[in-house]
Amino acid sequence: MGEFDLIARYFTRPARRSPLGVGDDCALLAPAPGMQVAVSSDMLVEGRHFLSTVDPARLGHKALAVNLSDLAACGARPLAFTLALSLPSVDESWLAGFARGLFALADAHGCELVGGDTTRGPLNICITVFGEVPAGAALLRSGARPGDDVWVSGTLGDARLALEVFRGRLALPPALMQLARDRMELPTPRVALGLALRGIATAAVDLSDGLAGDLGHILRASGVGATLDADAAADRLAGARHPDHAALPPQGAARHALALAGGDDYELAFCAPPAARAAVEQAGRDAGTAVARIGRIEAEPGLRLVDASGAPLAAQAFASFDHFA
Amino acid sequence: MGEFDLIARYFTRPARRSPLGVGDDCALLAPAPGMQVAVSSDMLVEGRHFLSTVDPARLGHKALAVNLSDLAACGARPLAFTLALSLPSVDESWLAGFARGLFALADAHGCELVGGDTTRGPLNICITVFGEVPAGAALLRSGARPGDDVWVSGTLGDARLALEVFRGRLALPPALMQLARDRMELPTPRVALGLALRGIATAAVDLSDGLAGDLGHILRASGVGATLDADAAADRLAGARHPDHAALPPQGAARHALALAGGDDYELAFCAPPAARAAVEQAGRDAGTAVARIGRIEAEPGLRLVDASGAPLAAQAFASFDHFA
Repeated sequence: MGEFDLIARYFTRPARRSPLGVGDDCALLAPAPGMQVAVSSDMLVEGRHFLSTVDPARLGHKALAVNLSDLAACGARPLAFTLALSLPSVDESWLAGFARGLFALADAHGCELVGGDTTRGPLNICITVFGEVPAGAALLRSGARPGDDVWVSGTLGDARLALEVFRGRLALPPALMQLARDRMELPTPRVALGLALRGIATAAVDLSDGLAGDLGHILRASGVGATLDADAAADRLAGARHPDHAALPPQGAARHALALAGGDDYELAFCAPPAARAAVEQAGRDAGTAVARIGRIEAEPGLRLVDASGAPLAAQAFASFDHFA
Repeated sequence: MGEFDLIARYFTRPARRSPLGVGDDCALLAPAPGMQVAVSSDMLVEGRHFLSTVDPARLGHKALAVNLSDLAACGARPLAFTLALSLPSVDESWLAGFARGLFALADAHGCELVGGDTTRGPLNICITVFGEVPAGAALLRSGARPGDDVWVSGTLGDARLALEVFRGRLALPPALMQLARDRMELPTPRVALGLALRGIATAAVDLSDGLAGDLGHILRASGVGATLDADAAADRLAGARHPDHAALPPQGAARHALALAGGDDYELAFCAPPAARAAVEQAGRDAGTAVARIGRIEAEPGLRLVDASGAPLAAQAFASFDHFA
């Protein structure tokens, strides 16, 4: 199968909302009047962002999910995406699975594939996603203010828990491993929550490298610091709320590390003033996404960790994931 | 050097026109009222799109140039781009050179880097570029009509000529090789010409895989055919006009093949009615880009080749470059 047949068979569908989709030199996007276009790009490399053994449908889902998560963190509504794909060979069953997972998530968010590129080479998936957001309404990293609460959505640390099992560093009961593996392979981008938080949250970031590191982006961009309750963060481990939780091996500091620096969560961390607590909780209910308050923004720069009793914990062990470290 | 230091040192510059640039979850683009956003994405893989020995500054230029060429083919004005980069290691002298070549071309076109991604992995460069074009004014592949002239910009076949030398399949005098190598490594995206052709050209395509194959996209999208003068196309070889041209090894059919199927030209092929010939030539002068008339659109589907005397040539030898063939 040639390059153009491959594109036609697996990656060409009629453009519905965009004026021009796959098959010309460029695609055309027509944002509604008054809207800005939010753009984000993520590149996934085999062995680094996913295991070579992953189900291709799950990989297709995840490749788009991690990009939609960036739109969610800006409060942008998904519009379209491009897909650039480097493939070592044409494996039709892999392509069919990848496209199935990709388009299922794209359709769920009304986000259409408008263009891209395919080439032969080491497996690499680069998606660039486009959303729209009213001018001035985007959630930024720079708006956090002292006194704001720090919130997180969904669950934390489960993807890393699964990765540690794949690496042979710990074992989990099968039901718990399935739950953790689903969180690693099928992350849920919090698009509805990001939209619901427009006008409520003062700052937001998506959690890809781990809560401690990613919250650090908000702190630096906003010129503030924060104190986080590490026990409250660790309670966000889905595994900690599972019936088998007593069998969950990581305890204490290791559980803190999973929640604070596990990475691959694709949840939102965001800030909002205490007066907005009811509004945040309503936004979570409207979006069908759990939200939990786990800390407080302070004027003093830096990130401080405490346990549930308020006693300080060492923070330096929870550095962010870094692809080049 | 870590991932965030790398981005800060080599790829972060203040956003000038975009409301939000590098350093948040998304970048924000604000197209002017009435404008659509043209989007194109190209992925470059070492050993397939460039040689591992290429000067990194030239690679930075080319990685953006091939994307700007897609905007040119749509008649879109460059606005911004994202860069996703997979690197086997952090080589600061390579990064500095790559960034220098990339930003020199970006600055020449007022096209700013607004975001992207970096990761460790086999060398892979994925750029997604954004331009703006008034609604309804984009040059498409689908507008060619029987009777239209077929035009090409600039020169054809020189990049492939250099590649054949690198592959050891032919030898060139040094001055001619330098010229061909510059065309391979430093293509000139025809952005000004694309803008000047809005309202004049009926269809356009950028030449990345070779004239015969890329013109085929226009023919299929427009439901037409064409006859091309292969000798006129071969005259577009810059080498054919060089003082050393008598020493240019490819002759006859091989020279036709270079011009018609060499690939990597990043010129425009476009169509316009005969009544617009003076306007096309004026657009070429305004853009500082040579344009040449090399064929005619016809109602009968398919591509037919003739020589300068009008005698038919076999077309099947000039298939398009295909990454998976």
